[in-house]
Amino acid sequence: RTMSYGKGDVFAYRTYLKPLEGVKQIPESNFSGRNNIVFGLNVKVEIAGQDFLPSFTEGDNSLVVATDSMKNFIQRHLGSYEGSTIEGFIKYVGEAFLNKYAQIESVKLIGEEIPFHATTHSNDNSEAMESDLVFNSSRGERSQASIEMKRMEQRNEVITQSSKIVDLQLIKVKGNSFTGFVRDEYTTLPYDSNRPLFIHLNIDWEYEEEEDAYGNNPQSYVAAEQVKDIASSVFHELDTPSIQNLIYLIGCRILKRFPQLGEVTFQSQNHTWETVVDDIPNSEGKVYTEPRPPFGFQQFSVSKKDLQNNEEVAASGKASR
Amino acid sequence: RTMSYGKGDVFAYRTYLKPLEGVKQIPESNFSGRNNIVFGLNVKVEIAGQDFLPSFTEGDNSLVVATDSMKNFIQRHLGSYEGSTIEGFIKYVGEAFLNKYAQIESVKLIGEEIPFHATTHSNDNSEAMESDLVFNSSRGERSQASIEMKRMEQRNEVITQSSKIVDLQLIKVKGNSFTGFVRDEYTTLPYDSNRPLFIHLNIDWEYEEEEDAYGNNPQSYVAAEQVKDIASSVFHELDTPSIQNLIYLIGCRILKRFPQLGEVTFQSQNHTWETVVDDIPNSEGKVYTEPRPPFGFQQFSVSKKDLQNNEEVAASGKASR
Amino acid sequence: RTMSYGKGDVFAYRTYLKPLEGVKQIPESNFSGRNNIVFGLNVKVEIAGQDFLPSFTEGDNSLVVATDSMKNFIQRHLGSYEGSTIEGFIKYVGEAFLNKYAQIESVKLIGEEIPFHATTHSNDNSEAMESDLVFNSSRGERSQASIEMKRMEQRNEVITQSSKIVDLQLIKVKGNSFTGFVRDEYTTLPYDSNRPLFIHLNIDWEYEEEEDAYGNNPQSYVAAEQVKDIASSVFHELDTPSIQNLIYLIGCRILKRFPQLGEVTFQSQNHTWETVVDDIPNSEGKVYTEPRPPFGFQQFSVSKKDLQNNEEVAASGKASR
Amino acid sequence: RTMSYGKGDVFAYRTYLKPLEGVKQIPESNFSGRNNIVFGLNVKVEIAGQDFLPSFTEGDNSLVVATDSMKNFIQRHLGSYEGSTIEGFIKYVGEAFLNKYAQIESVKLIGEEIPFHATTHSNDNSEAMESDLVFNSSRGERSQASIEMKRMEQRNEVITQSSKIVDLQLIKVKGNSFTGFVRDEYTTLPYDSNRPLFIHLNIDWEYEEEEDAYGNNPQSYVAAEQVKDIASSVFHELDTPSIQNLIYLIGCRILKRFPQLGEVTFQSQNHTWETVVDDIPNSEGKVYTEPRPPFGFQQFSVSKKDLQNNEEVAASGKASR
Repeated sequence: RTMSYGKGDVFAYRTYLKPLEGVKQIPESNFSGRNNIVFGLNVKVEIAGQDFLPSFTEGDNSLVVATDSMKNFIQRHLGSYEGSTIEGFIKYVGEAFLNKYAQIESVKLIGEEIPFHATTHSNDNSEAMESDLVFNSSRGERSQASIEMKRMEQRNEVITQSSKIVDLQLIKVKGNSFTGFVRDEYTTLPYDSNRPLFIHLNIDWEYEEEEDAYGNNPQSYVAAEQVKDIASSVFHELDTPSIQNLIYLIGCRILKRFPQLGEVTFQSQNHTWETVVDDIPNSEGKVYTEPRPPFGFQQFSVSKKDLQNNEEVAASGKASR
Repeated sequence: RTMSYGKGDVFAYRTYLKPLEGVKQIPESNFSGRNNIVFGLNVKVEIAGQDFLPSFTEGDNSLVVATDSMKNFIQRHLGSYEGSTIEGFIKYVGEAFLNKYAQIESVKLIGEEIPFHATTHSNDNSEAMESDLVFNSSRGERSQASIEMKRMEQRNEVITQSSKIVDLQLIKVKGNSFTGFVRDEYTTLPYDSNRPLFIHLNIDWEYEEEEDAYGNNPQSYVAAEQVKDIASSVFHELDTPSIQNLIYLIGCRILKRFPQLGEVTFQSQNHTWETVVDDIPNSEGKVYTEPRPPFGFQQFSVSKKDLQNNEEVAASGKASR
Repeated sequence: RTMSYGKGDVFAYRTYLKPLEGVKQIPESNFSGRNNIVFGLNVKVEIAGQDFLPSFTEGDNSLVVATDSMKNFIQRHLGSYEGSTIEGFIKYVGEAFLNKYAQIESVKLIGEEIPFHATTHSNDNSEAMESDLVFNSSRGERSQASIEMKRMEQRNEVITQSSKIVDLQLIKVKGNSFTGFVRDEYTTLPYDSNRPLFIHLNIDWEYEEEEDAYGNNPQSYVAAEQVKDIASSVFHELDTPSIQNLIYLIGCRILKRFPQLGEVTFQSQNHTWETVVDDIPNSEGKVYTEPRPPFGFQQFSVSKKDLQNNEEVAASGKASR
Repeated sequence: RTMSYGKGDVFAYRTYLKPLEGVKQIPESNFSGRNNIVFGLNVKVEIAGQDFLPSFTEGDNSLVVATDSMKNFIQRHLGSYEGSTIEGFIKYVGEAFLNKYAQIESVKLIGEEIPFHATTHSNDNSEAMESDLVFNSSRGERSQASIEMKRMEQRNEVITQSSKIVDLQLIKVKGNSFTGFVRDEYTTLPYDSNRPLFIHLNIDWEYEEEEDAYGNNPQSYVAAEQVKDIASSVFHELDTPSIQNLIYLIGCRILKRFPQLGEVTFQSQNHTWETVVDDIPNSEGKVYTEPRPPFGFQQFSVSKKDLQNNEEVAASGKASR
């Protein structure tokens, strides 16, 4: 039966965590590491175990770890964590929960980045430089990691592990078409050969070897910042016939750059603007406005096999690029 | 692999839908029906089928039903729907999608109520009466229904169906304790024998016979309004030792009142206030304030077997009530 | 110059505050009082005074009352408040701030209701009754009060006082027109003689005698619940030619029922749905959907003189009703 | 009396607006211009005039410009606007409203930036470069401009004009104190000589010569990006004794860099984290968590005279830096 409990919105900010350095460089991105001077997280923990049943059926709290204590547990472990990544931290906490409380059979953790960006200050030569003290709270896309661990006879095992970038919002101002779809009595949308495509993306990636996810070996670690840059780069390069095709090709590129990954999964949304002024004299500009509330969405996973097929197709000259 | 697409935030408001009348009366509730003069819904549709693969891998849109057309499809079907419930409407639309488009293998729909409450107006005798023209948009708890249907060789089949009340927020001002839980070096929460318990609840119910869910036979239909009234009533009656025990007993009561249900599932959250002024001369009142952001949560399902156990325990005099 | 500081989002919940009883009855409303078993407030305080200037220009904090202390001050005073209304409470706190801290020259307070509605429970006779223990957190319209007080030579004076209902959302399903407006090259909206009008309203009222606002004499107190019922009642009765005219007539009615008021001010918004299915066989129903984001708004105040003019016009038979 | 109406949430996106180039360089910022490939705005318009009274009192719509038409008016004028700034655009639209409709006596406009940031793509040499096609929707701080214009006998006059950056959120991880404030029976906040200060800022600036605000002469234009960089730079340089003092010094610096401004006004909020783990072996790091909801705030304006005083104090060696 469904039976679990836990704590959400556990905010934890750590200053001067060990920096992430030495990640692999890729052509689409200038990302080379994170200084981790401010490392902000929103953590959710959920635990399960048969021993918790009497707390429901009889109101017997004797084995209940109060969720307030879980919050303390997570925040204090962020103080003792010696790694550099969200993936590594939630693994560290999950392991600690299983080791500390025998009544917990399995634990799920989600850690979502609360992102802070660099700011500038003027140095003694009156040049604007990056500050190592002041940071700007971003409210844009952010990275996320999740893990599920289970107590086994011999040891604790990782059941699932994944990394993610959430709520990436990208607009390409031209070069996007959407034509050739089904037309019938329910169709009011015209074919459009050149629209400004505005998409929201969640991208999820799984490693073939779980150990690569934690960042202990930075060369095998995939940073959300790099995935973001691949997404914008493929979007830039491609004349998109649809979001469906775009996310497929972004997935192939991610798997190509990072052979340590096994699968990439997308949740995409279409928030494309509506055209208001189509023709401005002596300008290629147009005026658009916000669409009505309904939004289209897609869910799709891309595996290594897709990458192979795609490269073969490309080699034989049939691919769109 | 993961592969689906659809449309979210499809808002549809129907006036003068057929009223829901003749539901079974229960002791906890005065609810007797819905006039459906305004029937507001936020619908999400998600479709799947192998035929959609080339739209991803090749950008071939020839079998793609535009999500804009899905929106039109849903809204127009709300015009032709002749029943009285959200459950019935999404079944009707799901069936129509499968019948209309051969490339769709399965369809999921979620319909969430946009609730409107009665207002008053003054009649000719200067009495305040319920208006049948003006309604108040509520932004509190609301009902929801979901369905998944699949094309089978002989006919379309319902894979899962469920009904729900979401974001019900209840506070009980006294008579709630939380004591006896694990105390260790991570515990800072004191035992409390009388706290104001503030909970958020999502409650989900499944019928034993799927047909009972659609409201065609109102006597077997379970209204979200009734589930809400059972929840507040059990909360009122019980001196709660924990949220865990409270939701278990609410679940048992729901199953007792509505034997046509097989299982009830809870998602609960704890948003209990913190005490600021404990002692006010000549008053049993206190002053509280908003808690910090982290919130505890529970997930739990209650089945008919639980109800039986609970009733046996109650009969033998050991239950809390 | 602009110079002030304070604290916002000071949440304070008081249980068992003295009930509000004995308000005047009006034909549009069944409201007769508030039990105040849960009295929830979100308070904002803002203070000013020339003595605070060095805290800005020199970083001298010696006269600074920490905003954290202001929060404590407000919450503890809710424990000692012996009245029944938000208006009365913020007056009481404002007075106390001026009396306690000589460096404060003026203080502004806004108190916004956090509304809780009644729930039901089953009594011993298996009837559903109103609970005096469990309440439902509403997230709809709520009342608000604001006050500004100033230290004068002789005594503290109230500079402005007002009461308000905010975010009231009402839909009237038919009987609303909007025609006859300016048509030119920027007009795309058609004339509509029967639309479902969806409005958001903030309504603000000021008393002629400030003392009437605090509820010490309940017969002169105007409850937000009554203002809401007048708004829905006038909306019900009137075939509206525009929101402009609707709010004018609501204002006149409020002033007619409550001669102790001097002025009523409206902020209204138009969120009217768009029609999707206009004609449903054998039904007067239609299907609508959410409008695009832009919303029209109005701001308008109605005074006693307007009421007089309106009644004269009505008497001479020319008014719309 | 209060009487006006208008339209809010008029979203308008213009591609390939004329770039902003040639702004003055300052030591705190690398900002040199905006390419305006995507220029996104949320506009609010509010109009007033005595001729609108009968639309309220009599429901006479004959002089009413429908707010739907106002939306069209704004969006189409974004197509014909030939400048480069929000300030310039709302001036252009305001003027056009007054010229087109004689019944409008005065018009207020607010234009708020919907910000988009640069993304990268891989060029032919496998280097990551800035894209001129794909942009990232930021949801952080943004610029805003407002204007009020009035029809005068001879010509339309600008009554007020201001520029703004809103919702800038900055954290400084150390070097902030808050001590020496009033201690009494309402004080529970301890003195703190080194806290991580998290502030939210709205900063508003007014030009001495209104014409400088529109960007026609880029050398006199002050960009929100530069104001942001001054704020972070002063925050970086200063050991803050309070937010009050910090905003005062930011204001002085802004006025020093941009002598074309007359006054700068701040709305600041304090959202400082609470400490959870104070001492981490072999690290200067700490762990913090989200504060409770109440937040302190300040409102303060800084004028040229303050700058003078501050520079004199600094010259005489008494200033904090």
